[in-house]
Amino acid sequence: MNPFESLGLKHDGRTLWVLDQTQLPDAEVWLDGSEPEAMIALIKRLAVRGAPLIGVAAAACLATFARRGASATEYATACAALRAARPTAVNLMWAMDRMKGAGDPVAEAQAMFEEDVRLCEGMAQHGSALIQDGEGLLTHCNTGGLATAGIGTALGVIRRAFEQGKRIHVYADETRPLLQGGRLTAWELKKLGIPSTLVTDSMAALLMRDGRIQRVLLGSDRVAANGDFANKVGTYGVAVQARFHGVPFHPVAPFSTVDLACPNGAAIPIEERDPAEVRGYGALRWAPEGMPTWNPSFDVTPVDLVTSLVLDRGVYSAAELRSGVLRQVCL
Amino acid sequence: MNPFESLGLKHDGRTLWVLDQTQLPDAEVWLDGSEPEAMIALIKRLAVRGAPLIGVAAAACLATFARRGASATEYATACAALRAARPTAVNLMWAMDRMKGAGDPVAEAQAMFEEDVRLCEGMAQHGSALIQDGEGLLTHCNTGGLATAGIGTALGVIRRAFEQGKRIHVYADETRPLLQGGRLTAWELKKLGIPSTLVTDSMAALLMRDGRIQRVLLGSDRVAANGDFANKVGTYGVAVQARFHGVPFHPVAPFSTVDLACPNGAAIPIEERDPAEVRGYGALRWAPEGMPTWNPSFDVTPVDLVTSLVLDRGVYSAAELRSGVLRQVCL
Repeated sequence: MNPFESLGLKHDGRTLWVLDQTQLPDAEVWLDGSEPEAMIALIKRLAVRGAPLIGVAAAACLATFARRGASATEYATACAALRAARPTAVNLMWAMDRMKGAGDPVAEAQAMFEEDVRLCEGMAQHGSALIQDGEGLLTHCNTGGLATAGIGTALGVIRRAFEQGKRIHVYADETRPLLQGGRLTAWELKKLGIPSTLVTDSMAALLMRDGRIQRVLLGSDRVAANGDFANKVGTYGVAVQARFHGVPFHPVAPFSTVDLACPNGAAIPIEERDPAEVRGYGALRWAPEGMPTWNPSFDVTPVDLVTSLVLDRGVYSAAELRSGVLRQVCL
Repeated sequence: MNPFESLGLKHDGRTLWVLDQTQLPDAEVWLDGSEPEAMIALIKRLAVRGAPLIGVAAAACLATFARRGASATEYATACAALRAARPTAVNLMWAMDRMKGAGDPVAEAQAMFEEDVRLCEGMAQHGSALIQDGEGLLTHCNTGGLATAGIGTALGVIRRAFEQGKRIHVYADETRPLLQGGRLTAWELKKLGIPSTLVTDSMAALLMRDGRIQRVLLGSDRVAANGDFANKVGTYGVAVQARFHGVPFHPVAPFSTVDLACPNGAAIPIEERDPAEVRGYGALRWAPEGMPTWNPSFDVTPVDLVTSLVLDRGVYSAAELRSGVLRQVCL
């Protein structure tokens, strides 16, 4: 088997290893994700995360499982169980549907991995053309090499603009409650040497008012056929702020994130997570014990708040999205 | 000396004790704030916080210091040093200016304490009349008994509505980076038995879109003569969200928070705090070490985003504020 080698995934010929993203940035701990049961647990507790990476990692897990001699029944059962591990990310379902009918699971998973790398290149190419020299960019959650098999979705676009020599400054929302921005995006930005500043989610509006943000770029876990999209909680609020301040707002996603079976955002299921995540972080609790919380993991942003959607295949305006362009582009 | 007895302050006849709010909600630790130097340190590290309480606590400290035999020079020096402890909260400056010329510091501090209790009653009376049965209310930071000598500003208004039998539900923003909402407001709401839910700052927009918020009530650290006001960072973002969703938005403050010498929000100095506060919380750091951050402690909301300002003396619309009503009301 070829190695699945990315920032958050690797294979040594026998074992599939995933980087435990919950322990970043301080510790780089690799865990065995070869068995479907283990991979499901890793996905559920967000050790492996990012819509594209989840799909690729689950496929690589199934390929490893098949190579280790799983029966057809065991394979089918594992495929269905992995498919259900996270309800909002559509890439996982898409990947499992492909793996379900694959003649050669190893070749199929490898093809998906390589395809994801190419999709990231496509998004980077189309998206980076939007970014002008000197812009301040706001992003939310993590959408980089840790979230995909390649260079990322929104953060891949930003990285490409930086590599093109554009003088940009990135503002990263910390992204409560699980702090993917503060932990993971900050880690990637620092590693890449891109000029950047970490802020709390509550400061984004102020940055816009002060004229420090010229563009918002962030990811998506599912894009509906009309261009509405689900992404990490807080995205909708950023979209409203961007509209109010006249700042262009772009979700960035591969075509595999588009769910044509989903007519609009109202049809996207939103996962609610453990209420304790809002009462603290990790082992630290700061709110009173038992304080009621609300913890939706995602929110839905309507296409009306989108300037344009960056896909691997091109950039599509809100007007094009509303007129159904995704039904042609993503068939 | 009469006791300065509130949720966050007490006096045993010799020593002024302040509740260390950084240790709430899990530990109720009282610290000696009798000496000006100690009180300044407590104010700087937010052990004592809330614009009205800071003013009252600093006055009580000066009174204790005078009673312990401070010379006129020591008293004047301490008064000036306390006045400079936090640059944004105007109540502290107002209180220190009163104490500077006081003939009897103990009587003056006690009068200020009792006055703050009455001011809270005034805000509660006027503000609670705005709240209708069945409303969902959003608040930010902490503005309750911990922030004042009385029942609070915005949270006092909410408490009064609850005591009037109105069926309300309070959504409390956790208020990163220092989590005054998650720690302190949650603690007060739970103590008072008011139905409530804690959310991350990034979820407020979603609550509004879902129709769960009928009104926003929050505090202020300084109100300019034209109605612009400074408050805990994140307030401006909430104001934009409220405007976008058509939700009434009310800052609540005593007249002592109004700074007539300050013509508008642009003239309010904004304190920037330790960058490390954005990289984690308390002893826990989750962002990469040395990651650059931005950490303004406050932001300024323009009067155009205000529905009405609740003062102890009445409720004033944005139109009234713009036309200079504060110059009459707060003289």
